Amino acid sequence: MSSEPKATLTKVRSAVEEELAVFLKFEGAYLNSISSDLSPVSETLTTFLLDSGKRLRPLFAYAGFAASGGSLEKPIVRAIAALELLQACALIHDDLMDGSDTRRGKPSIHRHFESIHNENNLDGSASQYGISAAVLLGDLALVWSDQMLNSAGLSTEQYSRVVPYYNEMRVELMAGQFLDIHEQTQMNTSVDRSMKIARYKSGKYTIERPLHLGAAVTESSTPEKFAALSSYGLPLGEAFQLRDDLLGVFGDPSVTGKPAGDDLREGKRTVLIAMTNERLSESQRAITNQYFGKADLDAHGVGLLQEIIDSTGARAELELTIDRLTDDALTAAQSDVFTPEGNALLVELAKIATKRSS
Amino acid sequence: MSSEPKATLTKVRSAVEEELAVFLKFEGAYLNSISSDLSPVSETLTTFLLDSGKRLRPLFAYAGFAASGGSLEKPIVRAIAALELLQACALIHDDLMDGSDTRRGKPSIHRHFESIHNENNLDGSASQYGISAAVLLGDLALVWSDQMLNSAGLSTEQYSRVVPYYNEMRVELMAGQFLDIHEQTQMNTSVDRSMKIARYKSGKYTIERPLHLGAAVTESSTPEKFAALSSYGLPLGEAFQLRDDLLGVFGDPSVTGKPAGDDLREGKRTVLIAMTNERLSESQRAITNQYFGKADLDAHGVGLLQEIIDSTGARAELELTIDRLTDDALTAAQSDVFTPEGNALLVELAKIATKRSS
Repeated sequence: MSSEPKATLTKVRSAVEEELAVFLKFEGAYLNSISSDLSPVSETLTTFLLDSGKRLRPLFAYAGFAASGGSLEKPIVRAIAALELLQACALIHDDLMDGSDTRRGKPSIHRHFESIHNENNLDGSASQYGISAAVLLGDLALVWSDQMLNSAGLSTEQYSRVVPYYNEMRVELMAGQFLDIHEQTQMNTSVDRSMKIARYKSGKYTIERPLHLGAAVTESSTPEKFAALSSYGLPLGEAFQLRDDLLGVFGDPSVTGKPAGDDLREGKRTVLIAMTNERLSESQRAITNQYFGKADLDAHGVGLLQEIIDSTGARAELELTIDRLTDDALTAAQSDVFTPEGNALLVELAKIATKRSS
Repeated sequence: MSSEPKATLTKVRSAVEEELAVFLKFEGAYLNSISSDLSPVSETLTTFLLDSGKRLRPLFAYAGFAASGGSLEKPIVRAIAALELLQACALIHDDLMDGSDTRRGKPSIHRHFESIHNENNLDGSASQYGISAAVLLGDLALVWSDQMLNSAGLSTEQYSRVVPYYNEMRVELMAGQFLDIHEQTQMNTSVDRSMKIARYKSGKYTIERPLHLGAAVTESSTPEKFAALSSYGLPLGEAFQLRDDLLGVFGDPSVTGKPAGDDLREGKRTVLIAMTNERLSESQRAITNQYFGKADLDAHGVGLLQEIIDSTGARAELELTIDRLTDDALTAAQSDVFTPEGNALLVELAKIATKRSS
């Protein structure tokens, strides 16, 4: 394996995509053998998974694995690629729960099936069909994720060590998602509550647990290594989520693949919004109440809210927090409990996760 | 283990419920340790799983296990109890996809969370909150199902034999569910297509695969035994689904826990409806077009449609088909590749599945 971390990540990413393609081709053919009416299921999931994606969770899992001295083999690639299927479930169901129309610049899955219904003049409600298809495609991606992991070819010992972390990360994902939808129903916002959601949805699910899962594959993982991975993964995961909050409000649509100010239109109670709410003047609060969470918010309204968030200093404070958390992660990445290759990969991934463009 | 099949099934059912209660208590406490805001999640899932349910899938899995010579131990009970969590996911997501208001005489999960939202005057859309909560609770039940199976305490060899059947049954469930929602969008009905849906949703998912999963736990399972279990399970599963179709149209609400004629109001294209459509007179077709699938269908409309379905002979033919399929299953249950205890359990379960009351 190359000692150049960028080259290594590129190689792992390609290997993950190749294994995903093989799995999806095989399982898609199996579905079609049940009925050709299932072809929209396999085609849609295949496009969703292979068209794009930065493969962050597999890459973090690989870094945890390499940091504990592991070297790349096919069963490992398959095992970490399974995390992309879990993430597909999370995204498909998340877009359904948020009522998001787009994902990566294309229609979200429920909208895609709604369009199929409309274009073919099918019977019944197009919107209900879209919802149902998104529920089922997400469920199938979750099942496939598990299937890809349990058939990856890991040894019995490797699988037994990995599976508790896999259970944990899935439960933490669902817990974080529920806390998130619960937060959207509250009368007030809270920086603490929103930080906890960031910790579960991103700190743990996106970074800490994939690192642990990768480390658990190796025989040489000690409690000390798991703790060191947490010291790196938790702050980095929070930084990653806070960057996402900023992109949801200030991000460039051509880069994020989502309309400008999408989180404002949706009224998403992020850490950024909770911080802003703590600092609003009376007149700013009046404007915020009028525009925040309005589904038909136009460019003018988005601009007004962006200006307010900026002027309260919340944006600048969040940037500082991201810098501080990233520094913590970068320090933890240097730990001498990791292999030198692990150190280099963890540093490189910290850059990718916090400067992310979508 | 008692040789009296009814007593055995009662004992297995209690053991399954006990293990489910232990699992749910432990995992619920874990969720609450993350945040007390998660208590509605664990409480709702616990009530949903423990309040009622005939535990059919665990019982079929036990029968497959006993028919191959296995005897009851805690890891086996936990492994087969996991199928109840998978079924909870299927029911919660199914009610969401069908837009069903009730399940077992109580509000369905999305309606339950919609009510929580309304009663507490929460912010945002109550209906969207209900949808989101149902998506997540179903996802969590699916994850817990897997967790309960992989932590059941099966030996490595047992687990490796079981997991391919578990994968298969989950994929077949999702495939059957997708074919079902696809069927509801078609301009015409088809007995063949509806029979295939019955085969996947019930023949395979409810009966054949649980039997196989149970048989796979034992060391002594041969291809011959798996084939004999299919010869019993597939016809019985179809009979079970056709009984469900009849109950959806003619069932007593006090017994089914669903309003009378619910499938008629929903416009569900079952085998019963496909058979009816093949036999309608012109005047009957006009009435059917007017009333079938009307969300506000009243008792008069339900009565009219019931009368038409009856008079075409579709109901009687379906009863004959159920009898024939049940006979096939009962014959297969006697196979001498099974243990005598297995023979007795399979016969008893065939009665329960086809005379089922909800």
